Amino acid sequence: MKKIILSLMTLSCLTASAQFGAPRENPKVPSVVADVVEDFKPASTNQGGKQYPMVNSQRMVRAQIKAPEATFVGLDIAGKIYIMTKDENGVWTGTSEPQDEGFHYYQLNIDGASVPDPGSKYYYGASRWGSGIDVPAQDEEFYTVKNVPQGSVNEVYYWSTVTEKMRHGYIYLPAEYYANPTKKFPVLYLQHGMGENETGWSAQGKTGIIMDNLIAEGKAVPFIIYMDNGLDVRRPGDPAPGQGGFGGPRPQGGPGQGGPRRGGFGGFNAFEEVLIKDIIPMVESKYRVIADTEHRAMAGLSMGGMQTHSITLANPTTFAYVGMFSGGTFNTEELKDAADFKKTNKVLFMSAGGRETGMVEGERSVIKAAENLKGIGINAHSYVSPETAHEWQTWRRSLYQFAQLIFK
Amino acid sequence: MKKIILSLMTLSCLTASAQFGAPRENPKVPSVVADVVEDFKPASTNQGGKQYPMVNSQRMVRAQIKAPEATFVGLDIAGKIYIMTKDENGVWTGTSEPQDEGFHYYQLNIDGASVPDPGSKYYYGASRWGSGIDVPAQDEEFYTVKNVPQGSVNEVYYWSTVTEKMRHGYIYLPAEYYANPTKKFPVLYLQHGMGENETGWSAQGKTGIIMDNLIAEGKAVPFIIYMDNGLDVRRPGDPAPGQGGFGGPRPQGGPGQGGPRRGGFGGFNAFEEVLIKDIIPMVESKYRVIADTEHRAMAGLSMGGMQTHSITLANPTTFAYVGMFSGGTFNTEELKDAADFKKTNKVLFMSAGGRETGMVEGERSVIKAAENLKGIGINAHSYVSPETAHEWQTWRRSLYQFAQLIFK
Repeated sequence: MKKIILSLMTLSCLTASAQFGAPRENPKVPSVVADVVEDFKPASTNQGGKQYPMVNSQRMVRAQIKAPEATFVGLDIAGKIYIMTKDENGVWTGTSEPQDEGFHYYQLNIDGASVPDPGSKYYYGASRWGSGIDVPAQDEEFYTVKNVPQGSVNEVYYWSTVTEKMRHGYIYLPAEYYANPTKKFPVLYLQHGMGENETGWSAQGKTGIIMDNLIAEGKAVPFIIYMDNGLDVRRPGDPAPGQGGFGGPRPQGGPGQGGPRRGGFGGFNAFEEVLIKDIIPMVESKYRVIADTEHRAMAGLSMGGMQTHSITLANPTTFAYVGMFSGGTFNTEELKDAADFKKTNKVLFMSAGGRETGMVEGERSVIKAAENLKGIGINAHSYVSPETAHEWQTWRRSLYQFAQLIFK
Repeated sequence: MKKIILSLMTLSCLTASAQFGAPRENPKVPSVVADVVEDFKPASTNQGGKQYPMVNSQRMVRAQIKAPEATFVGLDIAGKIYIMTKDENGVWTGTSEPQDEGFHYYQLNIDGASVPDPGSKYYYGASRWGSGIDVPAQDEEFYTVKNVPQGSVNEVYYWSTVTEKMRHGYIYLPAEYYANPTKKFPVLYLQHGMGENETGWSAQGKTGIIMDNLIAEGKAVPFIIYMDNGLDVRRPGDPAPGQGGFGGPRPQGGPGQGGPRRGGFGGFNAFEEVLIKDIIPMVESKYRVIADTEHRAMAGLSMGGMQTHSITLANPTTFAYVGMFSGGTFNTEELKDAADFKKTNKVLFMSAGGRETGMVEGERSVIKAAENLKGIGINAHSYVSPETAHEWQTWRRSLYQFAQLIFK
């Protein structure tokens, strides 16, 4: 358990502040005014008909809001608050420095209040529903809706025997699930990161779009993806969670089949019990699923990658395919004597953003880890997303890569 | 066309300002301080873990936000802005007068900026994604998630031959759709109101929950519900829409089979073409549907009710069941010679909120209209929702009633 907490602490240092819900104030910096190319266009993540926020070809973000009586308005994105300026109509405008390609959480600050931008759609991250903006990417085709056979992302409610409550998740069913009503499919269980929830992979991650496109091109086999909330698991009698997603300590124990008993850390560990006892049986009974190890995969991003790590180790014969996206690495020490895991595993995939230096350089990099694991007979793969950090573009690309490797 | 515009104008007078996206300023009134029962609880529509907004047993709404540098913060709900007050920590709090049972759009005003409350989940209405709050209702059981067989609300993308673009909707599939993979089902096409979109019926309307509960109790037969966007239909060359959802004039013409040619009014009329040419064929080919008139229904709320009115009149042999929720009435004049409509129709349902006086009193009431229509041989039904206005509680209850009458 200590090791997992330590790993999370390490990760948190590498992580955009938005990933974690800490209410710290970002530093205020001047809005960018020099060398700005004035080719701003409304972001694809805007609410219908809203002009702002905009992005230009330099990947700068420009926000605008009417706040005639305000004395301060700032654009709070990627760890900085850009000081916006007011015109004679009470409309405030400000421009950020260039952002990475892909999706970013952000918010506005109006006289000390942190609020969503009324121009953007809203996404769950940093432990809250708030603004998001998609900065155009060179490779955005792979997550753009196209006129190909469409699967669908479906909302799921189910009864949890662990929490003794109804729970909520999403399931992606490929187009062929509807077109071929007798066929059964493999399933990937796919988890979000700290401060996010079960909506992240379909909304920010564009899971359904990525899969429809991959399947249409013949790059991935059709499979089902199930996405749940990996942090909100509270058994009867568990303490209520803190605001930041970390709960207090809880009674020891868990469903691990051979792994160490793990306590504490809010829903992080309790999720294993829900996954094994509630989610997998529900998916395998309600949907047309090939219900065996070789057709079962688990992956996750950041904290969800760490959950994948601990859950697949503790349940070594349950999943044949394992993916950790910006979620650390498996090491040879923990796997060299893990006979069941090694026999079961068909692909072990580890990825990171190119700017997550701790995860791409040196001994602890995903590249080095994959090399080491190959040395002990694991079919390990690594992937580094060019010029992205601990953010969704890394994870969209990771899913795109991982999906092409599994169930083949 | 003139008649439809006039009807909409009439409706707009009856309608909560939030329904329409007009940027008018609501009057500022003092926060309620006297005779307030201090039993406030976090609203069910809050973001996970957020304490505010709260509702008390008097159905008063209390909002709170930290805005240390602000000089004015107001709670903007149901046509009034309640002036909030600041404590020594820069935290502003304010309390509204009692609200109707059920769902209400609202927002905060911070120094002249209208923004979502960071405490609530967000819903699309008033032509924007913004805050919503559910005030507990005496009859809320019927839209509460229960451990009954669960259908699901599924996201749908499809190619539109009319707009020559991918479009987006939601489909509710009942639990039996999954449990019984050969059975075919009837379909209800269900539309939102002005300033809303395809998410309204499942999010605010709780369609999937209402249907799962009704079917589990044996009160409704299992059927599919398809929900689309009735305002964003733009054919190639159509002008871009205004902010409020009304587009400019467009070329005459439409797919009506006998109805008058209708132009203008943004997506209001163009939706007919998408429904008939794209949506119904897509649903009937992709899903297991009983694809005949007797198993096809259309209903809508407010503007969606008016679309139901005009589309079912113009396509008189397409739908056997018709529902208008706070959407006006059919009258005997337009139906007395409509032989096809009368022969096809099995149920014509018209409802309104008890506080929508124009729709429940006198000659133009839904009650009187149903009586008149019965006189010419129509199986007309009316329903009045107790103590609600032009708002979602009326429409949740209307769906609950209508669903029990159709496909039987």
